[in-house]
Amino acid sequence: MLNFQYFMPTRVIFGPETLNQLGDSPHLPRGKKAMIVVGESGIMIKLGYLARVQSLLSKQDVQSIVFDKIMPNPESDMIDEAAAICRENDIDFIIGLGGGSTIDSAKAIALMATNTGKYWDYMQSGTGGGEEPQSNALPIVAIPTTAGTGTEADPWTVITKSGSAEKIGWGNDSTFPTLSIVDPALMISVPPRQTAYTGMDAFFHAVEAYLATCRQPASDMLALEAVHLIAHTLPEAVANGENLEARTVMAWASSAAGLCESYSSCISQHSLEHALSAFHPDLPHGAGLVLISKAYFGFLASRGEERLGDLALAMGDTLQENLEEDIPGVAFLDALDKLIEEIGLGDEKLSDYGVTREEIPMLAENALTTMGALFDITPVTMSQEDVIAIFEAAYQ
Amino acid sequence: MLNFQYFMPTRVIFGPETLNQLGDSPHLPRGKKAMIVVGESGIMIKLGYLARVQSLLSKQDVQSIVFDKIMPNPESDMIDEAAAICRENDIDFIIGLGGGSTIDSAKAIALMATNTGKYWDYMQSGTGGGEEPQSNALPIVAIPTTAGTGTEADPWTVITKSGSAEKIGWGNDSTFPTLSIVDPALMISVPPRQTAYTGMDAFFHAVEAYLATCRQPASDMLALEAVHLIAHTLPEAVANGENLEARTVMAWASSAAGLCESYSSCISQHSLEHALSAFHPDLPHGAGLVLISKAYFGFLASRGEERLGDLALAMGDTLQENLEEDIPGVAFLDALDKLIEEIGLGDEKLSDYGVTREEIPMLAENALTTMGALFDITPVTMSQEDVIAIFEAAYQ
Ligand SMILES: [Fe+2]
Ligand SMILES: [Fe+2]
Repeated sequence: MLNFQYFMPTRVIFGPETLNQLGDSPHLPRGKKAMIVVGESGIMIKLGYLARVQSLLSKQDVQSIVFDKIMPNPESDMIDEAAAICRENDIDFIIGLGGGSTIDSAKAIALMATNTGKYWDYMQSGTGGGEEPQSNALPIVAIPTTAGTGTEADPWTVITKSGSAEKIGWGNDSTFPTLSIVDPALMISVPPRQTAYTGMDAFFHAVEAYLATCRQPASDMLALEAVHLIAHTLPEAVANGENLEARTVMAWASSAAGLCESYSSCISQHSLEHALSAFHPDLPHGAGLVLISKAYFGFLASRGEERLGDLALAMGDTLQENLEEDIPGVAFLDALDKLIEEIGLGDEKLSDYGVTREEIPMLAENALTTMGALFDITPVTMSQEDVIAIFEAAYQ
Repeated sequence: MLNFQYFMPTRVIFGPETLNQLGDSPHLPRGKKAMIVVGESGIMIKLGYLARVQSLLSKQDVQSIVFDKIMPNPESDMIDEAAAICRENDIDFIIGLGGGSTIDSAKAIALMATNTGKYWDYMQSGTGGGEEPQSNALPIVAIPTTAGTGTEADPWTVITKSGSAEKIGWGNDSTFPTLSIVDPALMISVPPRQTAYTGMDAFFHAVEAYLATCRQPASDMLALEAVHLIAHTLPEAVANGENLEARTVMAWASSAAGLCESYSSCISQHSLEHALSAFHPDLPHGAGLVLISKAYFGFLASRGEERLGDLALAMGDTLQENLEEDIPGVAFLDALDKLIEEIGLGDEKLSDYGVTREEIPMLAENALTTMGALFDITPVTMSQEDVIAIFEAAYQ
């Protein structure tokens, strides 16, 4: 019998040019001092986005300081450093402007700005301290400039422990953004390859949420919608990045997949990928997912996971096309293969990113210890040997 | 281009026997004194639900007082009376236990417990005072015992001005329930006819939200899901009320339609119905909607509203069945007719409830003045003559 909790308190303002609402929205968190978190690459400055956000904030009499040291795989020491700056400056709320790593960092900084100790004290697995926060995070405003992580519509933040290969997801009710402004016009400038990587991250959020045993009706429909839209739009967004309509569809698909992360959850494919990119920080998260996906979903298909058929249907152009395939899992694998080819990622290999066959047992061990909880909601049981076999198959 | 706001901060806990979570959920609003709002009929006492809620609250050291004067079409004087009791007793939060009128009243009481003056001072149309509340409402817990209004998943409350025929909807961000517990086991005891009325209320929330010009992708998919589920399950819930699976499907469909009220909106069919039941308080809201629906959607069909075809598709058993019908609106009207017959409401007439042909001009006037805003988001323009013509057609 149906049994679930539906909860996603973030206000998402969606649409081209909605960034301007930052200048007059009554929904900005209270307070007059904000920290704006951006990546270390300087791209938010080059594109003029940072200046635009600062100017819009000043219309609401909000002063801002900028923290610009966030790396693609953000580390815990940097979170602690930024949180200390927040406390010293009596910051009222945190704005994450950029891709997933930036917004995730903003969430983690918001938590540590109001709590004692170090960020890793609050992690619940691996070498985490297992402590519970004493206070809610500062309010968070998310302004994504890529379509992929969905972090604007979920409470999750993924941070790597400095000096280690532990990459752990965390979140609580206070790390849902208070306000997320999803403006597809900000995503026009994302280069084709990054568009493909981040788009596939969103794709797998939806796919995994549809398969997770903790799914609910709302996540099912949002997941099928996101899978359908991404399969039909991502190739165009990759090929013609300036197509605002394609960017808009991808932005909604990504937010819809983010909602799936709130109403349902990722499954163990994300555990496997976090292990990979924890050891190989240059491997983009979306690329890592694509590189293990055929092996991972091949394993699920071999165990008879029937819901893969629904996903294949959502990816197809016609009902007929996919119903011709007898085995649901095979229909999905075919559609996945086609999508990966269409977005130009068909010839990537794990070894391109320095992954070696020798480290596979260690990767499997890491996946099971640092993100073990996702295995519990994966619809198919996986032993450590199974995880090793999936990595081996992905390495071919 | 897509442009919308997605916001529904209520935590909805859904499933049979989830009422028990009231006894240990960490998500109960803060405070130790609650007012429980129930209907005047005494049914919540007879069924033992009130005692059960009080006993569960006491497990969390929450004392409660009961306000049991809510009528089926709740009036503003009663809201003001209950709010005064809240202020005198330092009530921390309000629980609405029952059908839509009870939960709507709980929302209105929560607002007036923290604001000065009278409830009608804050209404924004008709003879309302047009004032803005100075304070947020007290936190609200909604425990619906019928499947229909969806008020557990939206901020809206519909109250009639005492001594008048003004029935107006109102709500703001603070009248979203903090927590809603949707326990289909509580709905088993609803009699067949009331099951049909409330189920059709949910049906029209979904239908109208799908047609509203302020719709968004999430409301579209929730609406189609609710319409599909209600068309296929309501006849069983009416025929076999003790079927917990049917009650559970209807409860989710009703909450999904309530979500549609938050992400999209009702359209002017609800304005017309509010006029009817404001003048005829014995007319159940769902019955009123059913009685005008064929004329109302017939008008929309005559104006070529194509989205009625999607709704017909969602109501059908097979794709083929509905695609055979050339005109989308006609396919929907056929499906609607079939559903109304199946739930045993096919032979009701407006005159059964004392509605006369003479009052039609006055009803049209009332619909346009007290709930005029819904006409602005109706996909088809309607003049006062059109509204009169719809009432005339419904009266046949
Ligand atoms: Fe991801
Ligand atoms: Fe209604």
